[in-house]
Amino acid sequence: MSTPVLKPEMLCQVGLIVRDVEATARKYAAAFGFAVPPIIQTPGFDNARTTLGGEPSEATARLAFFQTGQLVVELIEPDEKPSVWREFLEKNGEGVHHIAFRVGDTKATEALLAEQGIKTLQQGLFVDGSGLYTYVDSVPQLGVMIELLENFPKDRVGSA
Amino acid sequence: MSTPVLKPEMLCQVGLIVRDVEATARKYAAAFGFAVPPIIQTPGFDNARTTLGGEPSEATARLAFFQTGQLVVELIEPDEKPSVWREFLEKNGEGVHHIAFRVGDTKATEALLAEQGIKTLQQGLFVDGSGLYTYVDSVPQLGVMIELLENFPKDRVGSA
Repeated sequence: MSTPVLKPEMLCQVGLIVRDVEATARKYAAAFGFAVPPIIQTPGFDNARTTLGGEPSEATARLAFFQTGQLVVELIEPDEKPSVWREFLEKNGEGVHHIAFRVGDTKATEALLAEQGIKTLQQGLFVDGSGLYTYVDSVPQLGVMIELLENFPKDRVGSA
Repeated sequence: MSTPVLKPEMLCQVGLIVRDVEATARKYAAAFGFAVPPIIQTPGFDNARTTLGGEPSEATARLAFFQTGQLVVELIEPDEKPSVWREFLEKNGEGVHHIAFRVGDTKATEALLAEQGIKTLQQGLFVDGSGLYTYVDSVPQLGVMIELLENFPKDRVGSA
């Protein structure tokens, strides 16, 4: 109870796993009545520094984002390599994969979550290197995967 | 493209299916650092006017809500009777069941969604009768179930 680990007002994203990000983005655009967003290809380990279970990973995904006020809806089409995205698709098919909270300090948040038995699963840099994402193993306790999103201070971007 | 069917800025809720709403609410409260919310028992057909596939349904659920800025996180523990909630639990286990959009006119929105082949699955009144919820069959197209939430004008509450 003491220290809030996640600030509820920092809930900022809902991420969905899809099989075909272009097709699904078109359907969302039709349902929501706006333009189809660009499709973003995430880079491999050299740029994204992706880790899975603490080990370097070459897993990538194709992404599309819809801004909805406080919330971004993210569509994620995983590649075939092991990742939290791929595992979800194989286990559950398409669906909501995570809800994301903005955090100020990923390491401190990871430490607080670890005290509750919630460990980091996958981590990597934003496509443009401007921040760090962290998926944690919250499904057993909270019924949904939580992602932590940390924006680096602007003077750190590019040096991460 | 023409008429936006759903306004993205009206995304207002993420709903999760859980097996034990009290236990999960306690875990969320711990993770988020605030008080455990009250557990709300939804009423049967006489009060909720629940329909499933257009037919009256006695399905109920126990609910808990966490307010997070623009977004409410809703925990839903379904009873054993057929419902979109129960079906999700049996098919997927715990997880994110829907994302909800506030709408001004449910019937008009249902008609626009029907043009895209997205039909209404389950509908009912809010626990306090102050509005109408509608789950639509958007999973095949959008990868997630969408819920429409309509607040009745205050002078209609109680007469619905």
